[in-house]
Amino acid sequence: MDLKLIQQLKRPGKTKIVMCVMDGLGGLPGPHNGKTELETAKTPNLDRLAAEGICGLHEPIRAGITSGSGPGHLALFGYDPIAYQIGRGVLSALGIGFALERNDVAARGNFCTVDKEGKVTDRRAGRIETTRNEQLCDLLRAIEVPGAKVFVQTVKEHRFLLVLRGEGLEGDLQDTDPQETGREPLRPEARSEGAGRTAHLITQFLEKAKDRLAEQHPANMVLLRGFAKLPDWPAFEDVYGLRAAAAADYPMYRGVARLLGMEALQVGSGLRDKIASLKKRWDDFDFFFVHVKHTDSSAEDGDFDRKVAEIENVDACLPDLLDLNPDVILVTGDHSTPAALKSHSWHPVPVLLHATTCRPDTVRAFGERPCSAGGLGARFPACDLMPLALAHAERMSKFGA
Amino acid sequence: MDLKLIQQLKRPGKTKIVMCVMDGLGGLPGPHNGKTELETAKTPNLDRLAAEGICGLHEPIRAGITSGSGPGHLALFGYDPIAYQIGRGVLSALGIGFALERNDVAARGNFCTVDKEGKVTDRRAGRIETTRNEQLCDLLRAIEVPGAKVFVQTVKEHRFLLVLRGEGLEGDLQDTDPQETGREPLRPEARSEGAGRTAHLITQFLEKAKDRLAEQHPANMVLLRGFAKLPDWPAFEDVYGLRAAAAADYPMYRGVARLLGMEALQVGSGLRDKIASLKKRWDDFDFFFVHVKHTDSSAEDGDFDRKVAEIENVDACLPDLLDLNPDVILVTGDHSTPAALKSHSWHPVPVLLHATTCRPDTVRAFGERPCSAGGLGARFPACDLMPLALAHAERMSKFGA
Repeated sequence: MDLKLIQQLKRPGKTKIVMCVMDGLGGLPGPHNGKTELETAKTPNLDRLAAEGICGLHEPIRAGITSGSGPGHLALFGYDPIAYQIGRGVLSALGIGFALERNDVAARGNFCTVDKEGKVTDRRAGRIETTRNEQLCDLLRAIEVPGAKVFVQTVKEHRFLLVLRGEGLEGDLQDTDPQETGREPLRPEARSEGAGRTAHLITQFLEKAKDRLAEQHPANMVLLRGFAKLPDWPAFEDVYGLRAAAAADYPMYRGVARLLGMEALQVGSGLRDKIASLKKRWDDFDFFFVHVKHTDSSAEDGDFDRKVAEIENVDACLPDLLDLNPDVILVTGDHSTPAALKSHSWHPVPVLLHATTCRPDTVRAFGERPCSAGGLGARFPACDLMPLALAHAERMSKFGA
Repeated sequence: MDLKLIQQLKRPGKTKIVMCVMDGLGGLPGPHNGKTELETAKTPNLDRLAAEGICGLHEPIRAGITSGSGPGHLALFGYDPIAYQIGRGVLSALGIGFALERNDVAARGNFCTVDKEGKVTDRRAGRIETTRNEQLCDLLRAIEVPGAKVFVQTVKEHRFLLVLRGEGLEGDLQDTDPQETGREPLRPEARSEGAGRTAHLITQFLEKAKDRLAEQHPANMVLLRGFAKLPDWPAFEDVYGLRAAAAADYPMYRGVARLLGMEALQVGSGLRDKIASLKKRWDDFDFFFVHVKHTDSSAEDGDFDRKVAEIENVDACLPDLLDLNPDVILVTGDHSTPAALKSHSWHPVPVLLHATTCRPDTVRAFGERPCSAGGLGARFPACDLMPLALAHAERMSKFGA
C-alpha cells in the first residue's frame, strides 16, 4: 500500500482507533484436541467482537516469510517491512530503549577475542557474562573522539551498543566484523563520500578500544556492524492524520512506535494498567497501540497452556477497553508464534476488526480456522490493516469523483 | 515475490519437498452431475492429504490470464512469468528437447511460399506434412556460415527450429516474418550493436536457404522469428538452496526444469515409473518435480471421463510417493484445462500443501469448490507456492529481529 495515497485521502475526524497487538498470536494445533492456542482459549468477549465485526488472517511480510517483531509491527502500522528496513544499529538502540537522536550513528558491537597478531579467534569472546560486559562498557565509555560524543551501552552477554553523536555523521560504513575467525577485524571504511569523517572517528574509537581492552582477555577487542542512523520515514501522524500513543512496556516496541512519531505512554506491564493509561490520555490521541508481550514469550517457551491463559487474560481485560468506547478496534498479532514450534513462524495471523461501519462476515468465533473464512481474506497483507481501520473510522475521503 | 529476498533468507536443511504437477488440473463442471473432473474423481489419498494439509486455488500469471505450460511451470517454481519471459526461439528448442548451450541463438522457423518477386503468398507453405519438413530440414542443415555451426530441426508440419552456435552471437534481431502475405520477408536487422555479426550470419543463411529451396514449392522459403539466447536467470538451487530433480518425460517440461538448473532424471512415461526414479535418486536431491501430462491432454481432447480416470490414477499411485516420506508435498497443476473448453483456461488451479508444520484449514476433500474455502486463499499468486513450501520445510530464516 502506498502511504502517499493514504496521506492524500486522509481526512480529519473525531473517531478513535485502538489496535491491540497480542505478540505472536497465531498458533498451531496443540497437544489436546487439534485446536490452536487461540481456538482453545475461552474468549467470550473476543468471540462477540468477531461475530459483530469482520475477520481474516494477515501475512506481515510475504507468503512463507517469518517476521521478526520489528518488521511485524511496521507492517501492522502500514509500513511495508520490505520497503522500510531499519538499520541493525538502530534496531539495537530501540531494543534497549536508548533515545537515539536524528544525527546519531548507531552500531551493534560484539566483544571478541584477538590473538597477538590481532586476528580474531572468537567473535563472541566466549559469550562473557552480562555483568562483565557492563564493566567493559565502563572502560569504553570513557573513550573520547574529537567532535563527537561516545555512548556505549550493554545489551547482553558479549553484545553492546555504540552510538556516536555529533554534527555531520553518516552511517554508510563497512562492518568491521570479518564474520569468521582467523582474520583481522576489517576497517570501518566509508561507503559514501559523506561518511569519511565518521569512518575516521570510528577508526580512532577502535584504536583506543584496543588499548583499553588489551589486558581484558578474552574480551580484548570489539567488532562493530550495522552502522545506521534513524531512518527518514513519513511520520504516522502525517500519513494517517492520527495523533498516536503506544501503550507498550518492552523497549523494542516503544522504540518502533517512537520511530514513527508515536508517544510512548508511561505504562505498567499488565494489560489492565495499560488500559488505565489509555483512559487517562484518551482525549489527547486518536490512535492507541496496545502491546501484549506474554502471548509470544509463553509460546517461545513452548508452553501451550500458558499462551492459552495469556489470551484468556486479554479477553478478561477487554471490557475495560470497550468501556472507553473506541470507534474501531483491531485485535491481532505481529506474527505467529506457535507453542509447537517454540519460535516465530510464517503462518498467517488472526485479526478482527470491529466498528459500527463493519459489514459482518460469517465468522462467529475468534480463531485461526474461523478467520480463514472471514471477510478480510485468508492470507492478506498486514499493510492493508491501517487503511481499513482508517476507513472504518470514517477518516478517508473518496478517491476520484 | 522477490527471489533475492528468498535467496537471502534460505537456510540449509535436510528436509525434502515433492511438487506433483498434474498438467491442466483445474476444470469446470462436466456433463454428469455439475461436478468438475477433480471433484468427480474418487481420490481417497488426495482427500486425506487435503484434510491434513492446507488448500487453495492459485493463479499462474494474473487474474483472468490463461497460462501456457512454460509460464505456468515457471510460476510454480516461483519465477514470475511476467518478469521471466523465455524467448520464443528458446521455448521452441525446449519443446523438442534440443540441448541449447549458453552462447547459442535459437529461432522459430516456418517454411513459407514466396512468388517470383519474392513476396510471401502463404506464411505456412500450405501446412506441409511433417515428413516433408524433415526432408527440407536435411537440405537446410547442410548450409554453412563462417564462424558458426548451423542446426536445423523439424518441429511439426511447417515449423522448424534454427540454432546458430558460435562465439559472440546475440539474439537481439528483428523477426523476418512480415506477419502478412503480399510482402517480402523482412531483413533480420540487429536491434543492438552487439548483434550485428549475428544478423550478418542469419542473412547469409537465408540467402543460401532461398537457393536450396528454390525448387521446393510450396515450401520455397523460410521465415524466422523469436531469435533468443538462453536467459541468464538465477538458478533454482541458488535461490532456494534446494538440489532439484525433474521427473518429467515430455521435452518441454524437462527443458524448463533444465533451464533453472534442475537435473532431468531418466524416467518412463508412467507415474509409477517416475516415482521409482525418485526413489533411486532420493538421497541426491532436496526438491523433486513430478510431471503428469495426461490430465491435460485428455482435457484438450474434451474427454471429461478420461481426465477423471487420469486423476484417479495419480491418486492410486500416491501411496508409493508417500512411502518416500517427503517432508512437504505439493499437489497442483500448472493451469486449468477444463474438458468442457478443450483448451487451457484462466480458472484458478487447485493446490494442496501437506506437511507436519501445516496449520490445517477446514477443507476435507481435494476439489475446486472445497479449495476455494481453503487457508491458502481462493485466488492467490502461484509464485507464493515455493516460499510457502520452503517455509513448511523449515528452510527459511526469520526476516528482521
